[in-house]
Amino acid sequence: MREVAVIGVGMTKFGEHWDKGYRDLVLEAGLKAIQDANLTGNEISAGYVGTMASGSLIGQEHVGSLLADQMGLTPIPITRVEGACASGGLALRQGVLAVASGVHDFVVVGGVEKMNDLSVEQVTEILGGAGDQEWELFFGATFPALYALIARRHMHEYGTTEEMLASVAVKNHAHGAKNPYAQFQNEITIETVLNSKIVASPLKVFDCSPITDGAAAVILAPLEKAKELMPRDKIVKVAASEQATDTLALHDRKIITSLNAAKVAAQRAYARAGIKPEDVDVAEVHDCFTIAEIVATEDLGFFKPGEGGRAALEGETSFGGKIVINTSGGLKACGHPVGATGIKQAVEVVWQLRGEAEKTQVENAEIGLTHNVGGSGGTAVVHIFTKV
Amino acid sequence: MREVAVIGVGMTKFGEHWDKGYRDLVLEAGLKAIQDANLTGNEISAGYVGTMASGSLIGQEHVGSLLADQMGLTPIPITRVEGACASGGLALRQGVLAVASGVHDFVVVGGVEKMNDLSVEQVTEILGGAGDQEWELFFGATFPALYALIARRHMHEYGTTEEMLASVAVKNHAHGAKNPYAQFQNEITIETVLNSKIVASPLKVFDCSPITDGAAAVILAPLEKAKELMPRDKIVKVAASEQATDTLALHDRKIITSLNAAKVAAQRAYARAGIKPEDVDVAEVHDCFTIAEIVATEDLGFFKPGEGGRAALEGETSFGGKIVINTSGGLKACGHPVGATGIKQAVEVVWQLRGEAEKTQVENAEIGLTHNVGGSGGTAVVHIFTKV
Repeated sequence: MREVAVIGVGMTKFGEHWDKGYRDLVLEAGLKAIQDANLTGNEISAGYVGTMASGSLIGQEHVGSLLADQMGLTPIPITRVEGACASGGLALRQGVLAVASGVHDFVVVGGVEKMNDLSVEQVTEILGGAGDQEWELFFGATFPALYALIARRHMHEYGTTEEMLASVAVKNHAHGAKNPYAQFQNEITIETVLNSKIVASPLKVFDCSPITDGAAAVILAPLEKAKELMPRDKIVKVAASEQATDTLALHDRKIITSLNAAKVAAQRAYARAGIKPEDVDVAEVHDCFTIAEIVATEDLGFFKPGEGGRAALEGETSFGGKIVINTSGGLKACGHPVGATGIKQAVEVVWQLRGEAEKTQVENAEIGLTHNVGGSGGTAVVHIFTKV
Repeated sequence: MREVAVIGVGMTKFGEHWDKGYRDLVLEAGLKAIQDANLTGNEISAGYVGTMASGSLIGQEHVGSLLADQMGLTPIPITRVEGACASGGLALRQGVLAVASGVHDFVVVGGVEKMNDLSVEQVTEILGGAGDQEWELFFGATFPALYALIARRHMHEYGTTEEMLASVAVKNHAHGAKNPYAQFQNEITIETVLNSKIVASPLKVFDCSPITDGAAAVILAPLEKAKELMPRDKIVKVAASEQATDTLALHDRKIITSLNAAKVAAQRAYARAGIKPEDVDVAEVHDCFTIAEIVATEDLGFFKPGEGGRAALEGETSFGGKIVINTSGGLKACGHPVGATGIKQAVEVVWQLRGEAEKTQVENAEIGLTHNVGGSGGTAVVHIFTKV
C-alpha cells in the first residue's frame, strides 16, 4: 500500500451563489486545485466527488460524468460518493484508497452542494433524508430536533449550559470573520446567540449551521511521486483515513452524548498515524450545530466526556487555548454546503500545515485532523494530515 | 496491489415488491451473499452500495449507514456510490480497489433500488437526472427519447432494422423465462415487440427495460485468502475492473452510434485481464433499451460496428451462437432496479463461471464480462471475471 499526499487544494467562497450553478462551483474549485498542484488535466487519472443530494436539490444525479465533462477530463473515471453530510470526507477516503492501491496516481477529489435553489422548508426535508426516513423524518424529526435531543441529554448528564453552546458559535464566527471564504464574516456575542429565535430548544438560530452553496477540491498523489515533483513545504501527507458507521436512527443508540462512529474512526486514525489526540495542532470538526462541536471535541479525545462545553466557554478551543478548532469558522460560520464540507475541512488543514492560512494561521502547525459526520452520526470519517 | 476474488453472491427476485421496502431488499440480498461465502458478519470489514436515486425515490439518502445498521454490521465503513444506472458497477469497482489496496479483506458490495413506490411519470423524471438536467431533461428529453436518437442514427448509418431491435427483446425474454429471479418470465415474439405501443420512435414498450424493485450483493476477498478458505470452484477472480466517462449530454458527442466510455473501459479491461473479446464466453451487457444491447456488443468488440443488429437477429448472441449475451434476461426481462443492475450482472456471471446457472447455464464458461452503463453513456464500467 502506497503512502498518499495532498499536493493541491482549492475552494469557492461559501455562501449564497445566486449567479452560479452546481457545475460552475465544482469547476472553479477543481481548476483551482489542479492549478495549485501545478498539474495539467492530462495528468489526472481519476476523480471522486462528494455530493449528498443533488438529485433532490437540483434534479441532477450522475455528477461524476458531469464533472469529467465540465472539467474536460473525459474519459477518466469519476465517481460520486454519498454519505449524507460526510459525503466529502467519504469521497476523500475513496480517493486515498485509489492512490494507495496503486491503480491511480493523480486523483482529484471534489465536494459540492448547491442548496439555495429551493426553500428552507424543502431543503430541511431533503436534509432529513440523512436520518432515518421511516422512523425519524416521517414523524417530523428534522435535524435540529435530533441534535436538540443530543444537547438536552448532554446538559442533563454533564451540566453543559446554553452559554457553553453559544460560546462555540461565538468562537467560530470570530474565526470566520478572518476567513475570506466564509459565508459569515461577522463577529457575534453570546447574547446574539442566546437572544436568537429558538429552532428546537435548546438550539437557536445561531446554534445552527446555515444553508450554503459551495465547492472544494484537493489533488492526491503518491507521496514518493509528490516529493519528486514539488517542494516539501507544499506537500501534506495523509497519515490516516478512517471511516465508521452507527445506527441510522438516533433512538437506536445506547448513548447519545457521544457519537460512536466518530470515536471508532478517531481511534483507528490515531493508531494508523501513530499519534495521540494531544499531538494534534489544528482540527476542523463537524459543527453542524454547536452541540456537535462540543461532542466532537470529546469524541476525538481532546477533552474528557462532559468537559467539551466548559473548554469551549473558557477559550480552550481557540487561539491561545489547548487546541485550535475550526480555524475556517467551521460549518457554523464558514458555511455548510453539505457534500463540500468534508473537502473544505481538508483544504483548510492543508493551508494550516503549509503555513498559508493567513489571518487564522496556527503557529507551527504540524499535525492536522478533520472530522466529518453524516446525519446524527450514522457515518463518521476522520483524516489525519502531517507535514513531510 | 492484491488480486481480488468474488467468494459469495446473492440477490432478491427482481420485480414489483409491493410488500417489501428498500431495507428489506438489501438485507435479503446481503445476507444471501454472506451465507453463500460461508462467512459471518463479523468477518466483513467494509461495504459499498450502489443506489442511483434513493433520495428522490424514497426520501432516503445516507444508505451506507442504513445498510450497516440493518445488516448488523456497524461500525464497519459502508459507502454509497452513485453513477446513475452504473451505480452498481461503480460500487463493485470501489470494493475491488478497497481489497486490492490491502486496507480491507472481506468486503460486501450491494446494489439496490426501490422504484415502484412512485408513478411511472415521476420515476421517468427522476431517471432523467442520469442525463443532463439543464440541457436534456429540462427540454423534455427523457431516456427513451435519447436512446431513440441513438437507434435512429444506428439505423441510418448501418441499416439496422426494427426487427433487429425486436430480436434483442425476444432473446432476452427467452433467457428470462428460464431465470427464477427475472421480473418477466414469459417468452415473446418479434410481433409482440413490433405491435407494442410506441414510446419514442423507433422504440416501443417492448424495446424498453421496465421499472423494477430489487437488490443484489457480492462478497469480495483477496484471491490468496479465498484459496485458503474455499474450494476452487466457488471462487471467481476479478481479472479486470475498469471505468470511464464521457460527456453527460448525448448531443455533445461526435458519434452516438457507439459509447466511447464503454469502448475505453472495455479496451482497458481486456488489456488488464490479458484477453481478447473472442475469449469471453458469457456477458451481461446493459440493455436498458434494445438498441443499447446492439451498441454494447459492438463497443465490446464482439461484433464489428454496424454488425450487432444482424448478429442479434441471426441468433449469434444466444445459445448456439458466437457468444451468449444476457443469460439472466438482461435489463429487459430480468428487470432494471437501477442501482442493483451492475451487481446483478456480476452475480449472474459468477453463477455461470461456477456452473450454477441452471437452466441458462453456458457450457464450459470460463471467462465472463459485465458491462454497466450510466445515463446515455456518461459513465461505463466493465468487469472481467475468470475461473481460478
